Amino acid sequence: MKFRRSERLIDMTNYLLDHPRQLVPLTFFAERYDSAKSSISEDLAIVKETFEQRGIGTLQTVPGAAGGVKFFVKVSEEESKPFVKELCNLIADPERLLPGGYLYLTDILGNPSIVQKAGQIIASAYSDAKIDVVMTVATKGIPLAYAVASQLNAPVVIVRRDSKVTEGPTVSINYVSGSAKRIETMLLSKRSLAQESRVLIVDDFMKAGGTVMGMISLLEEFNAHVAGIAVLVEAEKIHERLVDEYLSLVQLSEVDVKHKKINVKEGNYFRK
Amino acid sequence: MKFRRSERLIDMTNYLLDHPRQLVPLTFFAERYDSAKSSISEDLAIVKETFEQRGIGTLQTVPGAAGGVKFFVKVSEEESKPFVKELCNLIADPERLLPGGYLYLTDILGNPSIVQKAGQIIASAYSDAKIDVVMTVATKGIPLAYAVASQLNAPVVIVRRDSKVTEGPTVSINYVSGSAKRIETMLLSKRSLAQESRVLIVDDFMKAGGTVMGMISLLEEFNAHVAGIAVLVEAEKIHERLVDEYLSLVQLSEVDVKHKKINVKEGNYFRK
Repeated sequence: MKFRRSERLIDMTNYLLDHPRQLVPLTFFAERYDSAKSSISEDLAIVKETFEQRGIGTLQTVPGAAGGVKFFVKVSEEESKPFVKELCNLIADPERLLPGGYLYLTDILGNPSIVQKAGQIIASAYSDAKIDVVMTVATKGIPLAYAVASQLNAPVVIVRRDSKVTEGPTVSINYVSGSAKRIETMLLSKRSLAQESRVLIVDDFMKAGGTVMGMISLLEEFNAHVAGIAVLVEAEKIHERLVDEYLSLVQLSEVDVKHKKINVKEGNYFRK
Repeated sequence: MKFRRSERLIDMTNYLLDHPRQLVPLTFFAERYDSAKSSISEDLAIVKETFEQRGIGTLQTVPGAAGGVKFFVKVSEEESKPFVKELCNLIADPERLLPGGYLYLTDILGNPSIVQKAGQIIASAYSDAKIDVVMTVATKGIPLAYAVASQLNAPVVIVRRDSKVTEGPTVSINYVSGSAKRIETMLLSKRSLAQESRVLIVDDFMKAGGTVMGMISLLEEFNAHVAGIAVLVEAEKIHERLVDEYLSLVQLSEVDVKHKKINVKEGNYFRK
């Protein structure tokens, strides 16, 4: 059965969005739609142009016999700026303030469409980077980590604070939490991370960066490498930030728990 | 700037996939593409036909002045059967067996493309149901819960086993774990669930169903209702299953930890 161009474009769009950073051979589409490769090439040119124009992403063509096409998410600033601005407004509600300068973000992190868009935006910054694995720590960072990982076509590994039978053997480290200066433990299933992996660390919230430093120490135990660090929200300017190189979508400043005041602005994402 | 039909179809496809179960007014698309409503209607008819033919989902047209179009995920059996079969094969590896009849599933649950597809398939079964919230318990169920929730346009609430400052005040209950017959505690942030909510419970693994029963008791404390229960994997036929009505994608049978034998088959999903 032959497919019309319009049907091909719709199905291709769905297929490519569902398979980011995966090489799809032209022959795959040619067989799927019983169409000539030349028609498929024309289709893909239209998809690429539209994806770029609408700030969705881009297609990369890999030439040759083993070639094909790969979709990379690239949310345009035109799309991401208003989203981050709205996120800032959502977060600026002083009712969110909790003891210790923490914020109640559970409702925001529980909203899949916010988390997914944030994941697409963060993944856009790493779409050209070599990322083998996305790592986060249980529990709050998990949804964002998956949202990023699904765009980067990378598995997620979850660091835990307690051991579970369903993890099998684990490697654990101790670390100093940056803000509270307490000694804490974190652990990771031994099976879950290969040596020399390039790891993107993703978390929902960063204060001084102690938790992120803990994850970095854990990576060393696996001979793995930090390929990037990205957080949804960073707390107000900390004097002794333990981590220098990171990406944030939102930054808090002038958090005053006593007077229920909180200032929220764009993170460093657009300045990188 | 005018858009050609091909560009409209591509962008519409992306937009609709990104906004499941949300009413999109025809005027929204008409303005977005500077096109007549009649052209948009024709576009949507092509999108609907292709989505249905390719087993992606369907579009529902809501007539009238406040009308528009809604996308519902509906993965066809033609698409979901082979996926579940492959999932069974992946799970059937006897190396996954852990003490107590548990399975090592961390790698599978860590693969966003598997989790996303499983989420689409589960969400297809509830696409016509009224679901206000998807609920799961930390940690392993979280990714699947988000994958389901993002297709149902519903928020996720996460039940925890320990209290965290970032949750604010919580409601807690005790429950008897079905298989180990131990008393356990679970708790949920007070702010996170509205009265009378219709809740879909999602988890990665169900043995006797104690954890699910715990979640149901917790729902009662919030005057909320169970709208459905879905799990990725159910353990082998338990004599005293605490929960009757549930959906599973995969079912274990003849788990023999001593002889490292395990039998895996399709869950009840396709028999419902």
